Amino acid sequence: MKTYTRPLDLKNGRVDMSHGSGGRAMAQLIDELFARHFTNPILAEQGDGACFALPVGAGKMVMATDSHVVSPLFFAGGDIGCLSVHGTINDVAMMGAKPLYLSAAFILEEGFPLADLLRIVQSMAQAAREAGVPIVTGDTKVVEAGKGDGVFITTTGIGVVAEGIDLKPSNIKVGDKILVSGMLGDHGVAIMSQRENLTFETTIQSDTAALNGLVATMLDAVPNIHALRDPTRGGLAAVLNEFAQASGHGMLIHEKAIPVRSQVAAACELLGLDPLYVANEGKLVAYCAAEDAETLLAAMRAHPLGRDAAIIGEVIADTNAFVQMETVFGGRRMVDWINGEQLPRIC
Amino acid sequence: MKTYTRPLDLKNGRVDMSHGSGGRAMAQLIDELFARHFTNPILAEQGDGACFALPVGAGKMVMATDSHVVSPLFFAGGDIGCLSVHGTINDVAMMGAKPLYLSAAFILEEGFPLADLLRIVQSMAQAAREAGVPIVTGDTKVVEAGKGDGVFITTTGIGVVAEGIDLKPSNIKVGDKILVSGMLGDHGVAIMSQRENLTFETTIQSDTAALNGLVATMLDAVPNIHALRDPTRGGLAAVLNEFAQASGHGMLIHEKAIPVRSQVAAACELLGLDPLYVANEGKLVAYCAAEDAETLLAAMRAHPLGRDAAIIGEVIADTNAFVQMETVFGGRRMVDWINGEQLPRIC
Repeated sequence: MKTYTRPLDLKNGRVDMSHGSGGRAMAQLIDELFARHFTNPILAEQGDGACFALPVGAGKMVMATDSHVVSPLFFAGGDIGCLSVHGTINDVAMMGAKPLYLSAAFILEEGFPLADLLRIVQSMAQAAREAGVPIVTGDTKVVEAGKGDGVFITTTGIGVVAEGIDLKPSNIKVGDKILVSGMLGDHGVAIMSQRENLTFETTIQSDTAALNGLVATMLDAVPNIHALRDPTRGGLAAVLNEFAQASGHGMLIHEKAIPVRSQVAAACELLGLDPLYVANEGKLVAYCAAEDAETLLAAMRAHPLGRDAAIIGEVIADTNAFVQMETVFGGRRMVDWINGEQLPRIC
Repeated sequence: MKTYTRPLDLKNGRVDMSHGSGGRAMAQLIDELFARHFTNPILAEQGDGACFALPVGAGKMVMATDSHVVSPLFFAGGDIGCLSVHGTINDVAMMGAKPLYLSAAFILEEGFPLADLLRIVQSMAQAAREAGVPIVTGDTKVVEAGKGDGVFITTTGIGVVAEGIDLKPSNIKVGDKILVSGMLGDHGVAIMSQRENLTFETTIQSDTAALNGLVATMLDAVPNIHALRDPTRGGLAAVLNEFAQASGHGMLIHEKAIPVRSQVAAACELLGLDPLYVANEGKLVAYCAAEDAETLLAAMRAHPLGRDAAIIGEVIADTNAFVQMETVFGGRRMVDWINGEQLPRIC
């Protein structure tokens, strides 16, 4: 066991350049903060990486990575810590995989309060525990004040796909139903409401959540789901357009079927945003054959994270692969990708 | 195939916030820059992550991650791109694993020249190709000007350990020999010589290199290597101290046996640095039983990246787990960890 002259000052201390030096100060930060809270037998080996047994009977493996640069770091319903765990778990789960392990790499800005880092680390540890996906290896770098923004966290996840599961956009067929797992736009509106240069406030909380349990439930009910994707940056519109491009088919969604909280709709109107483009961090979009849609919907609604699930549209023949929406007034409008940036640093 | 109004301006264009928005501009950056250069069939699937078959006959799996924040981004002998590929490949290889796949997550600063990003991406692609470890998934975020520093790159690698290979510090025994694979301190001195606030220049190049081939050669010759580690941040001194702590034994190294280029030694003297603490990015430290040491040394020297390999010391009984060096004058001195920071943002 390593010993240090005195413990880290987690109340009033701040990150300094020595915490990224590879020397004793970095070892102490890892021991007393990261290793203490992320505690698990694989991490405890303290190698250059994590080493674990290969899962038996798995078909394929999945790997996904996400950097998190959300601003502010703490927001209604979550913080960069749990977000960084949920975001990558969800990317792995959207491939139809059971997430197994996470890595976490921190880029800290000199002067960042250790008390804030502790809150973030505790939030990550709790999120990882709740999702059943331990953080098994990591890295810490420090940049000078003014060369970063508090903390950036990059997580990478690996998982395994059960035999027979094969989710990908090219599975999508004309006639498929499009489902969403719940209310759209909560995360983006929660963040925007807390940006310091905006004065309005809402009671909306980020929906940040790990979706691996919901996905497992859905695959149990309908193993032949065609494709899944979480509508994060770019919102539902980005997912529909990506899948339209990748499958070569058109998408038609029905505005009145799309679940959006009235407060979120109101906040979007105030801010000049469209809920279709606003980020979610605990929702998914699913494509399945029409005959499976009601079974899948029932399975989703039986799960706490899918209570407000809905069938919102269908895949149509369209060689232009356009995304269209039937509005509440009965007309149709195009749902294009955003060209510029709607909500910077939302995740 | 997606189409864009006009191609990315890779000559005079700059990163803007829309490149991180999840919309069309981000898709174009990924298509025309990352996907074009990192090209491989797994990446081409464009999922939320990468999906690949599990390797057959592997015993265990390894996962390692590193954020790279090196400054300057381009330096003699390399750049942040190849460094980010080599660094993580090496962490995987130090666990005795054959690296299989990499992920790459970019945090870009608004205003960063796309021409520089192109150079970095090309360097990463070449490094990945040469090492035989493809980049199969990734992520892109953009932060406002003044909230980052050009580009930060976090890579994560996974690999598999052959049956019977088991490298870890707790294997280290009293009597073990300590080997290094070549000249120490090149990377740190190359970086320091190019920091704009320093005026001296040297012909020293960074040693940045992927060590997976060297490790495979070494394990072929001596499957029972006890432990490996690459002496990056904190240099040789950090590795020796970590391994001393982890094994509970003392380490004794011999100054005259430690390979350091005369120009590196001279530059260190000028800068007030000690080569034992300076970072390397293409070197490793190996521990093996005394009776295997000559065989291992011969195997290392037969590999281009191990030409200057040397036996530099041995593990001794010491319940304090101290690291000591026998100096060229015959005395002994303690080799402690650095307490503060010697070389910030060296990797």
